[in-house]
Formats: sequence, C-alpha cells, structure tokens
Amino acid sequence: MEKSFVVKGNICQTVTSKKLDLHENSFAVCIDGLSVGVFEDLPEEYTHLPLYDYKDALIFPGMVDLHVHAPQYAFRGMCMDLELMDWLNRYTFPEEEKYEDLEYAEKAYGMFVNAFKKGATTRACIFATRHRYATELLMELMEESGLISFVGKVNMDREASKALTEDSADISAYTTFGWINAVNNRFKNTKPILTPRFIPCCTDKLMEELRQIQMAYGIPVQSHLSESKGEIDFVKILRPNNSFYGDSYNEYDLFGKNDDIDTDVKTVMAHCVWSTDKEVELMRKNGVFIAHCPASNMNLTSGIAPIRKYLNAGINIGLGSDIAGGHSESIFRAITDTIQVSKMYFRMVDDSFAPLVFSEAFYLATKGGGAFFGKVGSFEKSYEFDAVVLDDGVLPHPQSLNLAERMERAVYLGLDEKNITAKFVAGRKII
Amino acid sequence: MEKSFVVKGNICQTVTSKKLDLHENSFAVCIDGLSVGVFEDLPEEYTHLPLYDYKDALIFPGMVDLHVHAPQYAFRGMCMDLELMDWLNRYTFPEEEKYEDLEYAEKAYGMFVNAFKKGATTRACIFATRHRYATELLMELMEESGLISFVGKVNMDREASKALTEDSADISAYTTFGWINAVNNRFKNTKPILTPRFIPCCTDKLMEELRQIQMAYGIPVQSHLSESKGEIDFVKILRPNNSFYGDSYNEYDLFGKNDDIDTDVKTVMAHCVWSTDKEVELMRKNGVFIAHCPASNMNLTSGIAPIRKYLNAGINIGLGSDIAGGHSESIFRAITDTIQVSKMYFRMVDDSFAPLVFSEAFYLATKGGGAFFGKVGSFEKSYEFDAVVLDDGVLPHPQSLNLAERMERAVYLGLDEKNITAKFVAGRKII
Repeated sequence: MEKSFVVKGNICQTVTSKKLDLHENSFAVCIDGLSVGVFEDLPEEYTHLPLYDYKDALIFPGMVDLHVHAPQYAFRGMCMDLELMDWLNRYTFPEEEKYEDLEYAEKAYGMFVNAFKKGATTRACIFATRHRYATELLMELMEESGLISFVGKVNMDREASKALTEDSADISAYTTFGWINAVNNRFKNTKPILTPRFIPCCTDKLMEELRQIQMAYGIPVQSHLSESKGEIDFVKILRPNNSFYGDSYNEYDLFGKNDDIDTDVKTVMAHCVWSTDKEVELMRKNGVFIAHCPASNMNLTSGIAPIRKYLNAGINIGLGSDIAGGHSESIFRAITDTIQVSKMYFRMVDDSFAPLVFSEAFYLATKGGGAFFGKVGSFEKSYEFDAVVLDDGVLPHPQSLNLAERMERAVYLGLDEKNITAKFVAGRKII
Repeated sequence: MEKSFVVKGNICQTVTSKKLDLHENSFAVCIDGLSVGVFEDLPEEYTHLPLYDYKDALIFPGMVDLHVHAPQYAFRGMCMDLELMDWLNRYTFPEEEKYEDLEYAEKAYGMFVNAFKKGATTRACIFATRHRYATELLMELMEESGLISFVGKVNMDREASKALTEDSADISAYTTFGWINAVNNRFKNTKPILTPRFIPCCTDKLMEELRQIQMAYGIPVQSHLSESKGEIDFVKILRPNNSFYGDSYNEYDLFGKNDDIDTDVKTVMAHCVWSTDKEVELMRKNGVFIAHCPASNMNLTSGIAPIRKYLNAGINIGLGSDIAGGHSESIFRAITDTIQVSKMYFRMVDDSFAPLVFSEAFYLATKGGGAFFGKVGSFEKSYEFDAVVLDDGVLPHPQSLNLAERMERAVYLGLDEKNITAKFVAGRKII
C-alpha cells in the first residue's frame, strides 16, 4: 500500500491548543493515508512498513491556509500603501482581469501552485477569479500538485471594473453552473467551493441564485466578512435591512448551518475584524469558520481581529495567508503574526483579552483550519496524514536546544521551501 | 585606489522620506569611499574607474541597525510568550551569563557576526554583555567582518541574576575604563559606545561614574527608554525624583546635547514606546536618536511606538532589529514591521497619526539611522558609500514590473543573504 508507512523524527504538534505535544526521535505511523498515532518505540505490528527515517529533522502536521487568492500571488509584496477598497480598484481588479487570457493564467497560476507545493501548506481554500476556464485550469494544476484544496470561481456582478464584472446575475449563475458541472466530481483532491466575492460585489439577485446553486449541489461556501470599516459602511448602504454584515449571507442560507431549513452549509469567512456581538453569535450558532489573516489586516490597515474573544465565544478559527493582502504565503508567518497582533490588541485596545501563546496559534494553523477539511491537523489516530519535514540544521546555535525551542524557532524564523525535505498530503508523499 | 569604482544596476534609494528616488540601469560612482552621485550616463571623468556591472540587479544603500544585542542572537525566535521583565530574567540573563566563557563567546559571536556580514545591514549599534573580554572579542570579529559598528560593553550593577550583575558601581566603572582604553583607537570600523543597560540595572552611583567616563572619552551612548509599562513603573519607584524616564539619563548628561554644560553626547535610545510629551520634547531638544524596534515591541507585548508623532516632533529616528526581542536580524523586515505597526496605531489607537508609507520606512532604515554614523544612507554626493546588491530574479512574476514595485517587493518578501550578490561598506567591497 503506497499510503502505508512510518516516518521517524522529532514530531511536533498541538493536540490541544494549550500545550505543545512533542515526541523526540519518535515514529508516526500512516496506514492507507490515515494516521495511527505517534510512538516512541515502533510497535511490532508496524515494523514491516516502509520507514522514512528523517533522523534529527522536525516533523510538523501540514499547514492549512483557509484563505488565499491565487491570482494575487503575482503582486504580493507590492502596492501596500493603500486601504482595501482603493487597493482593490487600483491593483487587484486590473490584475484579476488578465485571467480572461488562459495563457497568462497558466503562467501565473503555475507560479502560485509551484510555490504552494514547495512550501509547508498542505491544504487551502482558494479564490480564483470570475473566469470559469482559468479557474478550471487552476484546479487542474492544483490536482497535479498533490495538495488538497477547495477552489472557487468568483461571483461578482457589480462594483468592480467593467472587465471584471459579470454581465448579469443570470450570466454569473449560468457560468457557475457550467463550472460546477465540469469540475464537481472530476478531481480527487480539488473541489469546488461557492465564492461570492463579498456583498459589495454581489447583487441581491445573484445572491438568490447562489442560494439555489448551493442547495442543488451542496457545496461549501467562502467569502469575506467585516474586514474593513469602509467596506462595512458600504454594505450598510447596500443592505440596509440586514442588522449586521453576516446577516446578508445568512439571508441567502450561505452562512453555515441553518436549523430552520435543516441545512448545513460548510462556510468559511475571511477576516471578521469588526464583527459585532450579534454576528459573532450567529457564526457560533451556525458553525461558520473564521479565516484569520493578520498580515492582510495589517497591510490594508483593516485592524486587528479579536481572536481571543472569538475563541472564548467558541467559534471555529483557522489561519489564512490572504495573498496578496498578506504578502507571504507562509502559514508559519501567519502563526507569528497571529501572536503579534493578539499582543497588540491586548496592549493597545483591550487588556481583558489575553494574547495568544505559541501553542494556540500553531493549533489554529493546523487543527483549527484543518477541521474545515475533516479530521486534519495532527497525527492523532484516524486523522488524515499531512506532514512536513523540516531541516532546521541550517539555523546555527551555540547552545543546546530542546524540541520546544526548535519548534518555535523554526516557525518564527520562517523555515521555508529550502528547508523542507519531505511533505505528505493525506498519506501521499508529494516532496 | 581600492575604494574608487563605479557600480551599475538599478539604483533605489530615498533621498527624502516622501518619495522613492529610482534610477534604472544607472551608475553610482564611489571615489575613495565616498559617493559622488548617481548618473544615467557615466560622465567621461569616471570612465577610467573599475566598473562592477550588476546588470538587472537592485542596488540599495546599506541597511542601518540602530539597536541589536549580539549575545541574544543565539536564542532569537524562542521564548516569545513572555513580557520584557520576565523574558529578561528567565531567558536573556541566563544566556548572557555564558559570555564569561570566552570559548562560548567566540562560537556564539562568530555566528552573529557571520549572519550580519552576509545580510543587508552595513552598520549597527550593538550591545554585548557586561563582560569586558568577550566584548573585545566581539569587536575584533566585527572589525574583521568589514562592517561598521559601535559596540558596547554593558554596565549593570543591580537587578539582574547574580552572575550577570557587576559586583559594584566601582568595579563596573573600572572594567569600563579598562575596556575603553583597550579598544578606543584600536579599530578602524569598530568603536566603543557607553552602554548602561537601562535604569533598572544601573545604580545612581554607577550612572554618576558613567557620566565621568563619558566626559573623559567623549564616546557616544546607547540604552533603552520607555519600552514597556512594567519597566516604566519600576523606574518610577527607583527614580522618584525624575519627572520622566529619560530625565534619569539626562540627569547624568547621558542624553544627547546639553547646552547648559556645552556637551553633545551622541545618544541613541531604543524603543520609546511610551514616551511622554516632556520626554519627546527633551529628545528633540537634545538631538537624541530613537531606535524604533517594532518586532520587539510586538513580541514582548510592549506596545506600538507612535513614530508619526515623533517624526512630527522632529526627532531623529532609525530602525533596530533588537535581536532577540525582535526575532529577525533583517532590517527589511523592520521596514515592513514599521509600516504595519504604524497602520495598527492609526486604526486601533489614534487616527490623527497617519500610517507610514513605504518610502518613509525605507528612509528610516537608511538615512534615518545612518545619520547616527554621519553622512550615511544614500548615494548622494559625499555620503559614505554603503551598498547592497540584490538579485530579485529568484522571485517569479508573470507580469512586467516597474522598479518601484521591484524595490517594495524585495523588502516585503525579505530578500536575504541568499540573494545578496555584493555588499560595500564605506567603499570597501566585503562580499
């Protein structure tokens, strides 16, 4: 069985958010793509399996990126002096227009997929553009990569550049039907996700049509929520009858579980920097995931999402790179950014919300976001076997280090593709 | 003349903080270590000089790190879940104790100096430890590297671990005399700087002795100021008669210019997160430099220094990595952190202070901090010729990019030693 094997090394994970779960020089066993557990001594019954001995390397669960825009990879780290709405209009929309051209899309998406394949991320929720065929092409490339993802053709029928705006709600819906029919059962690891860009870009009519599509196919939903003040003010004007932003998704049953009509729409909303108490309560009730994207929230001057508050409220949370609002695709960077912004929130805004500690942020990057994909994000029994093997030998140190120190250092100093010696996704070795 | 030559490439600098000064495919001329200027066409009079043609590479002024602790390099990116005073007592002081052992110091400082030599930093203000001989060793290694620096043997005669606390103010002063006499004119590029750790670690008697030493030798001063709330509260208890923290340095004439006694003590103070208006006014009046260390201020939950406010007040400001409060030695990272925290201050704390834009933060990292060393930080006429040559060809992109985009991207994505193809310090090629 290709997907049954043992890996040996220094295994670092967070089974709970409150502490690191560390196993020096131990064995993680994978049977048919699923983890069996971590063992200090390899049980007799697994000694017949192939062994990958990574010696003194660090072995982490794969990182989960709950929010990333593939077409924005091309301009990451540029044009960062603007806030959200200006940034969208001046840089993002003009760049996304280019994906009408499949040749350009292939070149650009190839670079994106290559970077994600080589990095520490094993799973992602990805925005493409409004273009059906470029989105299918991205899905093909993602499937070839061996990574596991949800990919969304974006819906947007107002408030963007002419070239990027779909001609009508009907055309947007029609194109989406065509796209879903083409890809719904075509790939093993790459699935469609319904992707209304955000309320400012989606008419009521389009939202109604997306509700119908969701009901017809039962696919999950991703979008943006309560990211920046300018955006939220705009949504209030567009949707005066919704008491809060999230309610405008909920009204169309695109906001998690709805017991009234007995639906459970797996939903992830990016940002939630400024969610009101009512919005938070509805997210909790409906089981909506938050994709926390701290770098993006800093770069676009959106603010700091009060993650401790949301954790206290019992909301599902994972991390997102939000390329290109965020400039780095590294979820290690998202972990340290999460800790840093939580410290700033505590110190500068409200000291009743304690900063996140390292184990908590690592948990969000693995099991937190992993829950959107099922049992993902650790080496516990029956979890899908996603792992990255990191060689931290490139980082010199004069003193001896314990495993907790090495784990934290690898994340803070941002070990990257040059330090990844192997990578497994659901038990398949892709590097 | 070894230090007279021409470099050719894409020259990127900030002559003023308000805009990028970009020269595609141009020539920067260095005569005897000093810049002559940047030319699109090489003037006839310089055509006889050796030419380094870096083709399509980016050429930046060298980065200036105004605040870094060499002995803390060993544990960067670790132990980041604590605030300043706990972090000092639990991790920093125990590590610094080891520098009594010269063998350990040589190993550890060797790693530090190697990292700085390879990176984009050309100049630095460095804290060593309280140990005289390890400090001399660090200075020897720095001199060999070709970098230009001020290095300080730390003074601390209270409130640290027993092994790290000097036995008395007299012994601290005596050791400092010995150290300065040994190094004061020994090196070309490596100079001593008086380094009282901070008020909590220095008795009044020691401060008085440091005043005498400063007056005797006229050397500059570096220390910490108004970094964290716990520290500031402690200083209030220790120094009840000073109306603000900075006044306790000023009382001993270790705080910049003092017209009353006609002294001008070149002084850099790290952090200034919580400086009061009176403290800011005195820094301005005395020409004290602030070393802004945003990563450290986040990691240690210190807060966000209101840099826009200080810029408006006309204070000299440069950037610091503050290894290991900051976890990265990259001043590129300090540039983007500076922008990000200024955006958070604007959004979450006080929207009367506009965020810094890219050109402003780049200016702080070059000419801002460079002013502490003289005419440093650009390729303007008569500036010391510090340059780093960066190959950004490793960063793929599907679209064409202009030079401003390439410059911003190189900084945000953190091009590092692997991308530095050449480096000049005061006209000397060290890589």
